Order: sequence, then C-alpha cells, then structure tokens
Amino acid sequence: MKAVGLLSGGMDSATTLAIARSKGFECHALSIAYGQRHASELDAAGKIAKKLGAVKHQTITVNLNQVGGSALTDHSIAVPETPTTDIPVTYVPARNTLFLSLALGLAEVIGSSDLFIGVNARDYSGYPDCRPEFIESFERLAALATKAGVSGGPAFKIHAPMIHMSKSEIIQLGLSLNVDYRSTVSCYQADSAGRACGRCDACRIRREGFLSAGIADATNYVAGVL
Amino acid sequence: MKAVGLLSGGMDSATTLAIARSKGFECHALSIAYGQRHASELDAAGKIAKKLGAVKHQTITVNLNQVGGSALTDHSIAVPETPTTDIPVTYVPARNTLFLSLALGLAEVIGSSDLFIGVNARDYSGYPDCRPEFIESFERLAALATKAGVSGGPAFKIHAPMIHMSKSEIIQLGLSLNVDYRSTVSCYQADSAGRACGRCDACRIRREGFLSAGIADATNYVAGVL
Repeated sequence: MKAVGLLSGGMDSATTLAIARSKGFECHALSIAYGQRHASELDAAGKIAKKLGAVKHQTITVNLNQVGGSALTDHSIAVPETPTTDIPVTYVPARNTLFLSLALGLAEVIGSSDLFIGVNARDYSGYPDCRPEFIESFERLAALATKAGVSGGPAFKIHAPMIHMSKSEIIQLGLSLNVDYRSTVSCYQADSAGRACGRCDACRIRREGFLSAGIADATNYVAGVL
Repeated sequence: MKAVGLLSGGMDSATTLAIARSKGFECHALSIAYGQRHASELDAAGKIAKKLGAVKHQTITVNLNQVGGSALTDHSIAVPETPTTDIPVTYVPARNTLFLSLALGLAEVIGSSDLFIGVNARDYSGYPDCRPEFIESFERLAALATKAGVSGGPAFKIHAPMIHMSKSEIIQLGLSLNVDYRSTVSCYQADSAGRACGRCDACRIRREGFLSAGIADATNYVAGVL
C-alpha cells in the first residue's frame, strides 16, 4: 500500500511519516521548497526520509516569496519572538491547501489513496489550515477533484495523526518509533546549518515539549542562546 | 473590489478575466508555469492580462514534470489527436486544486475574497476538477483554510462563469467584451510561437466553437495543418 507523506523536516511531519511506516505503508515523502526562510528544514527532510525508510523523497519548488504575506516567505517581516494570541505572522496563506494539492496530484499519479500530513491543532491552534474541519473538508474535496471522483475509485484518506496531540505526546510516540529528533529542524529562522534560534514560537513549543516529556532536548541551537 | 483571476492564456480564462473586469473588479491575473508542454500559453497570458487591464500579472512556477502522469507534464506521453470518451491523458492530476490553492493564498495576501477560474464542464466534461461540484467543494474548503475562516471575515467566492457555457457561447460573450482571441493559445502542443497544431482536443473544440458561432477562426495554426 502506497502513501504520500508530506515532510517539512520538522518534528510533527517526521513523526507522522514514522506512523505511516509503522502501519506498513510504502511511503513517498514529499517536501515543498516554497521560499521558506528556514530552508535548512529541507536538508533535514532528506535525512529523515532516508532514516525512516521512505522509498522516495521528492522536493517540489513553488516560489511563494512573490506572494509573501508571511514572515516565512517575506523575509522583510521579522519572525516574532514573543507569543501572541492572534494568528501569528508566521502563518503562510493557504499553505496546507497548496501542500495537500501537490500531495494529492502525486498520490493520484503513483496510485495511492493515502495522504499523511503532520498538522497539529493543539500547539498551533492559530493556524486555520491545521484544524480538523479543514482536513475533513480537504478530504471531501479530494473525492471530487480527481479521476476517482468520476470513476468511483477508492476515496482519498487524509491522515493527520498528530492533529490532537501535545508536543510532549508527539515526542514520546516518535521516540518509540525511532524518530531521530536531532535530525529535525523546527525553528522558523534556523540558520543554513539547521541551528535553532531558541526564541521563536516553533523553538519555544519544541523546547516545552521536550521538557514536558522529561526528555533531553535534542535540538542543535546556535551558540549562546539558551 | 479586488479579484484574483487565474489566467492560463486560453480562451476560457481570458473570457473569465474579461467578465471579472466588466463587473468592475480590480484584477490580479495569476498564471502558473507548471511545466506544461504548451508553455507559449504563458506568453499569451501576459498579453491578455495587459489588454484586459489587469492591474498586475504574476506567474508562479511549480514544476509538475517531476510528478508527471499527464501528456501535458510528461513530455514522453503523446498528446492524443483523436477524441476519447474516457478522461483524456491531457488531464493533469489535481491541477485545478493546485491552481485554486495558489489563487487563494494570493487573494488572502492582497485582501480579495473573489477568485475567478475559467473551468468549463461542458466541452471538457472528462476533467473531474472542472465540474460544478468540485468548485463548490473548493469554496467550502476556502472558507475554512484561511484567516477569514477563524476570524469570521468575508467568505471566498469562487466565480466560474464559463462552467456551463458552450465554446460558441463563450466566444460570442468574449467578443462582446473585446477579448482578442488571436492572442489566446488553446493548443496542447502549441509551438514556442504559440502556433496551434489543429489536431488535438483543445484545437478541435476551439475550432468547432468558432464554426458554431459563425465567426472566423482567429487561431494562428502551424502551416499546412488545415
């Protein structure tokens, strides 16, 4: 059974890929180079795909810098280093719709009906496209968007196993599935070597996850930040 | 009022953009360079955007050649030159899901709630992502995928004014809105100068449209094909 696993290079997508593998899926890992500030996550994705035994890892490039509207794609907008109750400026408009559309196209071509995405509604509840209702809506769309929607072929299933988990639970589950979190990059402004800033939302949530799980923080920080 | 108009460079999207303009929208035209065989349609799109008074024309590149699965993106698959009753191999998996996701992201960034797409369910009824139920489903998805879905902002409207029209009706409507069809490229295997093969489905449907409308065929064909 084939699956397409979206793989950013962060903890959640790595753990999601590990779950897909543990369920016996032959995994095609898909990363998107969308002009993200933290492009070193893509190097991480390549290593993770290999370690977790993906049969293939593809990276599709879509330049969202010309669209902008996010601190991750418009590099003149600073990554916030204090928490907010609003949707943070690191939100990338329609990113998960785009990622799932690319995964859907690839799935249709390789003959897979299973898409895996590491969205999490709990820690990142500010992002509209990480919510269960978004995932369910995309699943309904996928049923209409492709040949299977005409021919009555098998419906697409969008698996989002991290969606309700805490970061601590994700880390514990991932470790039980041999995810090497040292290889993952979460930081929104990781440097080209993948070293984390220790100050952005992604770093803060990741660090709290390790603390809460009682596990040593497996993050490569830039010198002197902690 | 701002709108994002997906503009392939063909007749339907050009006519759709003309309709958006006639309704008073300030139009941001969006083309996608997805590795299509008929890349000359993108040159056509630039000219059309200008002629129809779009305030801006952007082209986003997404390389679907590495995904393939279509005669338009896998150049080793020949473009069929005889009609079929099945979904033709020119179908590009999840293309309109991808295009709408990019349009949605751009719309959110520029503060628009109106997306225009030139899909047509009548002539191209084989394409699953040209059907009204797909468009309606994407509209529901868009309501959940973006900030507006959380904040209660204005819902996105996906306008598909061509969806039920025949090619002849499209041509007649477009001419009344001053669409210059000589600038449009429909052919799936147009050469680099935008000259049409006269034999593929797109050429056949376009030619029949002009004939049926009783209007001289404004297509630039390669020499000797008709």
